[in-house]
Amino acid sequence: MSKIDKVVLAYSGGLDTSVIVRWLQETYGCEVVTFTADIGQGEEVEPARAKAEALGVKEIYIDDLREEYVRDFVFPMFRANTIYEGEYLLGTSIARPLIAKRLIEIANETGADAISHGATGKGNDQVRFELGAYALKPGIQVIAPWREWDLGSRESLMNYCAQHKIPVDFSSGKKKSPYSMDANLLHISYEGGSLEDPWAEAEEEMWRWSVSPEVAPDQPTYITLTFEKGDPVAIDGERMSPATLLEKLNKLGGANGIGRLDIVENRYVGMKSRGCYETPGGTILLKAHRAIESITLDREVAHMKDELMPRYAKLIYNGYWWSPEREMLQAAIDESQQVVNGEVRLKLYKGSVSAVGRRSADSLFDERIATFEEDAGAYDQKDAEGFIKLNALRLRIAAGKGRKLL
Amino acid sequence: MSKIDKVVLAYSGGLDTSVIVRWLQETYGCEVVTFTADIGQGEEVEPARAKAEALGVKEIYIDDLREEYVRDFVFPMFRANTIYEGEYLLGTSIARPLIAKRLIEIANETGADAISHGATGKGNDQVRFELGAYALKPGIQVIAPWREWDLGSRESLMNYCAQHKIPVDFSSGKKKSPYSMDANLLHISYEGGSLEDPWAEAEEEMWRWSVSPEVAPDQPTYITLTFEKGDPVAIDGERMSPATLLEKLNKLGGANGIGRLDIVENRYVGMKSRGCYETPGGTILLKAHRAIESITLDREVAHMKDELMPRYAKLIYNGYWWSPEREMLQAAIDESQQVVNGEVRLKLYKGSVSAVGRRSADSLFDERIATFEEDAGAYDQKDAEGFIKLNALRLRIAAGKGRKLL
Amino acid sequence: MSKIDKVVLAYSGGLDTSVIVRWLQETYGCEVVTFTADIGQGEEVEPARAKAEALGVKEIYIDDLREEYVRDFVFPMFRANTIYEGEYLLGTSIARPLIAKRLIEIANETGADAISHGATGKGNDQVRFELGAYALKPGIQVIAPWREWDLGSRESLMNYCAQHKIPVDFSSGKKKSPYSMDANLLHISYEGGSLEDPWAEAEEEMWRWSVSPEVAPDQPTYITLTFEKGDPVAIDGERMSPATLLEKLNKLGGANGIGRLDIVENRYVGMKSRGCYETPGGTILLKAHRAIESITLDREVAHMKDELMPRYAKLIYNGYWWSPEREMLQAAIDESQQVVNGEVRLKLYKGSVSAVGRRSADSLFDERIATFEEDAGAYDQKDAEGFIKLNALRLRIAAGKGRKLL
Amino acid sequence: MSKIDKVVLAYSGGLDTSVIVRWLQETYGCEVVTFTADIGQGEEVEPARAKAEALGVKEIYIDDLREEYVRDFVFPMFRANTIYEGEYLLGTSIARPLIAKRLIEIANETGADAISHGATGKGNDQVRFELGAYALKPGIQVIAPWREWDLGSRESLMNYCAQHKIPVDFSSGKKKSPYSMDANLLHISYEGGSLEDPWAEAEEEMWRWSVSPEVAPDQPTYITLTFEKGDPVAIDGERMSPATLLEKLNKLGGANGIGRLDIVENRYVGMKSRGCYETPGGTILLKAHRAIESITLDREVAHMKDELMPRYAKLIYNGYWWSPEREMLQAAIDESQQVVNGEVRLKLYKGSVSAVGRRSADSLFDERIATFEEDAGAYDQKDAEGFIKLNALRLRIAAGKGRKLL
Repeated sequence: MSKIDKVVLAYSGGLDTSVIVRWLQETYGCEVVTFTADIGQGEEVEPARAKAEALGVKEIYIDDLREEYVRDFVFPMFRANTIYEGEYLLGTSIARPLIAKRLIEIANETGADAISHGATGKGNDQVRFELGAYALKPGIQVIAPWREWDLGSRESLMNYCAQHKIPVDFSSGKKKSPYSMDANLLHISYEGGSLEDPWAEAEEEMWRWSVSPEVAPDQPTYITLTFEKGDPVAIDGERMSPATLLEKLNKLGGANGIGRLDIVENRYVGMKSRGCYETPGGTILLKAHRAIESITLDREVAHMKDELMPRYAKLIYNGYWWSPEREMLQAAIDESQQVVNGEVRLKLYKGSVSAVGRRSADSLFDERIATFEEDAGAYDQKDAEGFIKLNALRLRIAAGKGRKLL
Repeated sequence: MSKIDKVVLAYSGGLDTSVIVRWLQETYGCEVVTFTADIGQGEEVEPARAKAEALGVKEIYIDDLREEYVRDFVFPMFRANTIYEGEYLLGTSIARPLIAKRLIEIANETGADAISHGATGKGNDQVRFELGAYALKPGIQVIAPWREWDLGSRESLMNYCAQHKIPVDFSSGKKKSPYSMDANLLHISYEGGSLEDPWAEAEEEMWRWSVSPEVAPDQPTYITLTFEKGDPVAIDGERMSPATLLEKLNKLGGANGIGRLDIVENRYVGMKSRGCYETPGGTILLKAHRAIESITLDREVAHMKDELMPRYAKLIYNGYWWSPEREMLQAAIDESQQVVNGEVRLKLYKGSVSAVGRRSADSLFDERIATFEEDAGAYDQKDAEGFIKLNALRLRIAAGKGRKLL
Repeated sequence: MSKIDKVVLAYSGGLDTSVIVRWLQETYGCEVVTFTADIGQGEEVEPARAKAEALGVKEIYIDDLREEYVRDFVFPMFRANTIYEGEYLLGTSIARPLIAKRLIEIANETGADAISHGATGKGNDQVRFELGAYALKPGIQVIAPWREWDLGSRESLMNYCAQHKIPVDFSSGKKKSPYSMDANLLHISYEGGSLEDPWAEAEEEMWRWSVSPEVAPDQPTYITLTFEKGDPVAIDGERMSPATLLEKLNKLGGANGIGRLDIVENRYVGMKSRGCYETPGGTILLKAHRAIESITLDREVAHMKDELMPRYAKLIYNGYWWSPEREMLQAAIDESQQVVNGEVRLKLYKGSVSAVGRRSADSLFDERIATFEEDAGAYDQKDAEGFIKLNALRLRIAAGKGRKLL
Repeated sequence: MSKIDKVVLAYSGGLDTSVIVRWLQETYGCEVVTFTADIGQGEEVEPARAKAEALGVKEIYIDDLREEYVRDFVFPMFRANTIYEGEYLLGTSIARPLIAKRLIEIANETGADAISHGATGKGNDQVRFELGAYALKPGIQVIAPWREWDLGSRESLMNYCAQHKIPVDFSSGKKKSPYSMDANLLHISYEGGSLEDPWAEAEEEMWRWSVSPEVAPDQPTYITLTFEKGDPVAIDGERMSPATLLEKLNKLGGANGIGRLDIVENRYVGMKSRGCYETPGGTILLKAHRAIESITLDREVAHMKDELMPRYAKLIYNGYWWSPEREMLQAAIDESQQVVNGEVRLKLYKGSVSAVGRRSADSLFDERIATFEEDAGAYDQKDAEGFIKLNALRLRIAAGKGRKLL
């Protein structure tokens, strides 16, 4: 075990990370710096201060990172229409690199030689935290208590609390859920409990951010989203900050039963895992972003983005936000977004979001050419013959030489 | 103009292709063979016989291709979770190669030296028909009247009918719609008319195959789909033929308001075009196929499929079904589907379809390992440390040598 | 035939383009502006002036584009290690977009409404010229005489010359070759003649830029190339301009028999074609660029570049330099090259070029870690166990559930 | 430490693996089964029997795997024109999955519960052995002594030998080299020693399989290679078995100084490493395979193969031969090779190999169309206009709407 003097802990104020504070102090005889961030998880972060103080922590960081989170992480990711495995909007994955970055910044400010987090050894989050930390500060040490200690069961954890006089009501409200949950401005996730059987339907009472489509309003809600350089900047003409905008989309989506997802996904560490997610605002945003791109992006650029996207999604899911390959891809994606400006009109209704209109000063939609009516020579239909003939030439040569396709 | 003796025409029985029969006879002085196929467009095909006879056609082909269509074209495509430009399920595109193949087969049977079709010079369908035809019979000649004649306006067409005594009630019912429509067992499409303004919302009365989500039943419908080697074979345990199954899914989806899509897409011939689609059964099938794959496919296989999919979709959209590169990709896709067996439980409700359960004898989901509870050593959390450290090594070396990511 | 008032012609001063001048004047009754560029083809361009004047041309452009060519086209392409179909260094393809750009600039300056070129209707060059022209000036008209006129045979061309008093010694020296040749600073190409039989070996006397490996010096030549941001800037420590540097590499390579290539390639218009190429400097540059990247690029960045490269090569080969998708890819490539600085030592010998040393202040090669000797803890071999175990986890689960790989 | 009863060791007969035999016996108190394979490394394998017996081994496997190696591993890999990082022909990587498979087969036959190998914890080979083993027998245990023991230095190893009476002349000849070497029918590799400085040129005396180009014959050698379904089957018309053929190509290549390579590569475990390789036969084979593909493969199939290749190479380099994703890719590759039949004529000369002729009954090269001479209407040059115009349409629309590319 290396000598550690000071460690920065990603501290939620909940029971688990409170136990970790004490365990780090005891096990490593080191000072613990706590870092608690508001990234829109929907819980007060300020109470973490008193809890940390009660545990003898002297350096306490409590940050509101909501705007940075949406502006520098969520929006850049949505520029790529990012989806992991065809379904998942990466709501957990994209929050981790920000936490990793902040842990390292605080380590630099406080002279800490290690960071620590409460993620388990089975999940993706440990990877995301630690890859980010190593990439930003290669000499940093990482302490992952769940991989080290013997407090794996709830009983041993409770015993530890009793022995160390850690108040069990440190436990936040959400821990009483049968599910392992995680939330930030982009989504809330559910794992574990009855979800561990992939055949079992999730209970209605599990979902927290959206109403059931069944009880959503009987009238559709229409909104207009304005985009600039690929990022949304206004709802119904009202400009707002990134975090405010995403929060508003979450409310609109949640109220209309939008954004629920129930999948089995493949973790980077090698196992399949069942997860349920609510991403109301993100679901709307993805639909809208594709719609504004549909009239502003060149065809081949759009197709190249579609081909690169699964790789980009995998990078983020696996924890490689802080990597040169992600930055290389981002350069291509961002280059494509300069022209992604305009408005999308959306219909939200009982679990569905549809794009029903799109317009842009940068539109490449050419009504003169696209029309089914007379086009006054805008398009010469005779061109199609040569186009087809030369595209067919290699196929005709092959068939002429006896190649069979049937 | 080459000498043509006999031409096989893709004949719908409608006004436009009836005019084409006469125009071909007159312009090329050739015999016309008509070919009318039932691919599930929802209209009687037998009436085309009398119409063709009235036009003096001697060789008339009327085929029911519904099973072949779904079995050999639709299902293979769905094995790849195929979507064009993130949205479009390729309902028109996938029907064309079957028509092309049948045109060539009939040309071979009847000794025709040319084929003809009623697709315009602005669209994708001409490309799909003709690429397929050239690939299957390289010496075939192609007559595309819309690129040649001067009957581009409705008036000149009507005048031509009057002059040539073509009864205008040849016009099928659907032609009275303000939209250009096309239908087959996979979908119905709408283009033109008021849709030519991409900002204008489609009218509710346009949609034909699905009820509005607003008027869909207030109770969800649950179904179970069974898959074998990537293809659906049964609904709620009842085995049925491919066409029967897709038809049933269409009804279930349509009744629940599922499968409407409103997009601007990029045509192969170079312009953007607004299209609305109803694909009720296909929308359900895509969701279900992804769900059964989620528990049966290896992670890296799934990811490779996701990376290849946009290319495969583009091939089909652009008309290259009959090509060696499509067959090469299909070999990889089909290889992956041998293990895609099992059941998916789906919830259909007011426009949405969700996978709520999935199970399979070929499942790779390992509850012992995935569990948040004690796993009795199935997974050694300590392995994660080395995994992360070596994955981070290149990033740490780079950072240690001064590379900056921020 | 549209009304054309003035046309800018890519004019070599040779017989074919001289005939085109007269043919354009006669056929379109328009003024012809000639444009002749030095892009390193190794022939004087100034003589074209008198020839154009003799043909009555009033606006004559003669430009030395060598530096722009290498700096803005050749070097950016080499940043991607670009090779078409595993072999071809794109020496013809990359020169075309520069010509297209200059034609359009001159059209803008002279108020011309059309451009023209001497490329045939079978080749790739017509596509490259015209796609570039349309992309840069969408309303431009294009006249491609070889697709229009009836002077396809040598005899009819000669008759035309006789009738129009075009001196046949306009014919440049290179036209006496049995081969169709093209040259610029990056390469010289040979097509046609006896090469049309792909089984026939190219004659030794065909090659012009390189000695045969058999007669190359018996002693190797060593050089050191310095790179900055992915571009070569110095040979043996001597900084030189892009064109000067490439010229020098051509001499060094040619003298050592380096850079000959004999392939069958796939043209964009659909046929296979046999081509022989000499690219002495480019062959050296590619080897050197890969070598400097091998120590400065991150692994995943390098791999992503390798995966994107064939697509980038295809874009350039097919004529899409002036396209948003090329610019999108270029953004990613250029982003990767900021760290590609350093020196490569190369051995040139009898047709081969080898990288024998590479060093850089930006090197990521870590001798402490890479060593086979004791590494004093720089690398903990025990980490490999967890790395392997988790990478194997999905495979073990699958095998445990009965999946077979054999 | 788990209880191990019997372990199968990949045993070379050299000093290191002899020490491992004893160390396994002592450390685990288990029985050791040795497995020694002839994969063309150029050393007798039979002497390993006596050495193993001397160490008390009772179950000794000595196999000649040369034909299986070339037929089932090397040739399938060459069907994809596989190169890692633009240079490396994967000579070490492709031998490992065969060893892994055989270790598992022997474990099954002998009832062993573990396998062991002599690869270090820093390299790729440990990964390749172990991933293969886990994929083929998920419950197998793996002992990697170099990651466990404290015999990391030469002295401690020698002391161990002395203490345990292991004759040091067990050391094979090649171990006296300053380089870490590895050989099989495809190549010989060199690492370590003075190569650890990537700026230092490899010494001439290091190379073992090829003469220096300087001393290669002054006359070129011409050979003709015959391919069937993508695999070479005959040299100069003489059919031979896979291993015989590769051996002969090695001799031909080596005698002409062909196949030397000096690179810095990126290991899967995260570090860069300098390696030198001699792959004489493989270098010839790659060139020849590309040449026969150039006339027999469809363009789009060839391009798709080129785009997939880097990924396939990475799979093999990283040790995922025994994986479903490799099998999926192989299905696509093999599908493409059915038509790759014919002959390639090659010139071998002083370090270079050139394809100088290629012919095939399956050739898609169409001289009638490709010719620069009159083609009698085989190709209609006018088709090119429509081809270009529609390919340019999206670019023209964009430019017409003000998009800038400059």
